[in-house]
Amino acid sequence: MAIFSKAGIVGTGLVGGSLGLALKKNKLADQVVGTSRHASSVSAAKKIRAIDAGSQNINILKGCDLVILAGPVETILGQMGRISRLVTDDCIVIDVASTKELVVKKANKCFARFVGCHPLAGSDKRGIAFARPDLFNKAACIITPVRSTDKAALTLIMNMWVKLGSDIITLDPGAHDRILAWMSHLPHAMAFALISAVPDRYLAYAPQSFRDMTRIAGSSPDIWEDVFTTNRRNLLDSIDVFVRQLIKVRSRIMQNDRRGLSRLLKAAQNKKHRSI
Amino acid sequence: MAIFSKAGIVGTGLVGGSLGLALKKNKLADQVVGTSRHASSVSAAKKIRAIDAGSQNINILKGCDLVILAGPVETILGQMGRISRLVTDDCIVIDVASTKELVVKKANKCFARFVGCHPLAGSDKRGIAFARPDLFNKAACIITPVRSTDKAALTLIMNMWVKLGSDIITLDPGAHDRILAWMSHLPHAMAFALISAVPDRYLAYAPQSFRDMTRIAGSSPDIWEDVFTTNRRNLLDSIDVFVRQLIKVRSRIMQNDRRGLSRLLKAAQNKKHRSI
Repeated sequence: MAIFSKAGIVGTGLVGGSLGLALKKNKLADQVVGTSRHASSVSAAKKIRAIDAGSQNINILKGCDLVILAGPVETILGQMGRISRLVTDDCIVIDVASTKELVVKKANKCFARFVGCHPLAGSDKRGIAFARPDLFNKAACIITPVRSTDKAALTLIMNMWVKLGSDIITLDPGAHDRILAWMSHLPHAMAFALISAVPDRYLAYAPQSFRDMTRIAGSSPDIWEDVFTTNRRNLLDSIDVFVRQLIKVRSRIMQNDRRGLSRLLKAAQNKKHRSI
Repeated sequence: MAIFSKAGIVGTGLVGGSLGLALKKNKLADQVVGTSRHASSVSAAKKIRAIDAGSQNINILKGCDLVILAGPVETILGQMGRISRLVTDDCIVIDVASTKELVVKKANKCFARFVGCHPLAGSDKRGIAFARPDLFNKAACIITPVRSTDKAALTLIMNMWVKLGSDIITLDPGAHDRILAWMSHLPHAMAFALISAVPDRYLAYAPQSFRDMTRIAGSSPDIWEDVFTTNRRNLLDSIDVFVRQLIKVRSRIMQNDRRGLSRLLKAAQNKKHRSI
């Protein structure tokens, strides 16, 4: 039996489109509608049947009992006011953004039944062309309830992610942003900086290690500009700690301190093997 | 027809063992012998038939017309003198080390017919257990001849790599080390520093991006200690340029300079897409 009668997706890109496909495939919503600033994205989502109906006009969200905010973070923050005037207090609203503290804070002011979500299922590929119904299967999904979160809505949304195959992790929004700064946002900043810094004429010689280290530098600049600026403080902290550590490696090499370098690399390798 | 009658592998690990398997599979050597400081490595290499005979004693290299130096860089540098007293001037000697300037310089003093080689086929996996005959197939192999390199030996060695399926790139040893500092050694230093810097309690939350960025931190500390110290100057330079670029990203975020950040990320994404 469907959990929702009318689900509305705001931002029919990779994650939004995949959610449409997944909700329909698993029969979790009787009807799925979608909206995007981009007409081409709406029509492509309709074509692959990620949504049953779509429009650039957000009025299409009227009557939804589930609204999914699936655009870049700043876009989500800018849309909430208008969307809150379209939906009833019964409507459950979720987001899928990569930073949570600002989003959850504002969403709880705008919506009676909001549940912050972050499926760790993004990619350096962007757009509806890469959408697939099993994107969330076997992927972690972080849910960030706060004290005021509607308990019934939280249960429904957890059930939804479980039915899509996700492994749920619960964190408060602040912990989410601190952890993700380290585990995702810093790596992205490093990848963007590495590809920027390398001399152009060397790019032809990229071995697998370099390709792995820069894969995520192919990610959408718009999405990452938003992520970096909405998680500024945590990200700056993690960059600083990382740079200090790299400078420590640099000092060992410069001073030809082989014992110190060896100790550092062995500890790093051990930690890597522990983390797998 | 075999190119070599007796090939000797010094260091029967991942690359040395794979070369033994590949030489035998492609019938490029009538006999393959191996030596290692580790008895277990020699016996494992014999067991998987990467070598026909093996010993911890390097005297087994007597009579070889090909010797392959396949240990870590500092080990290779330390062995050359002794090995040069075992082999004749006809014997072709190659290495497979990740840094070339020091190795080629010393090898040209020790051996009449030396050809520096660097197959880009390493891995974060180490040891004979991961050896396979097709390790070099469709992989790039950088060859670093200098003015004094024996032309006939160079031709034979190029033919050997081509028969193993490698795509050959020719560079002088200095250019090799400058390029590899950027494309391999810096990424490894970054990966070791990142895994060292991240708080332990966050390791459980690693998304794909973090795993990709730290995969090579699982690599052998011994091998990388040698690589870092034998390519010190180039590596320190590339670390410095990278850190300056990361600090530039940091400044844009701190100052909330969205236009500057956007420009930087877009240029990085473009460069990444150009480089694939």
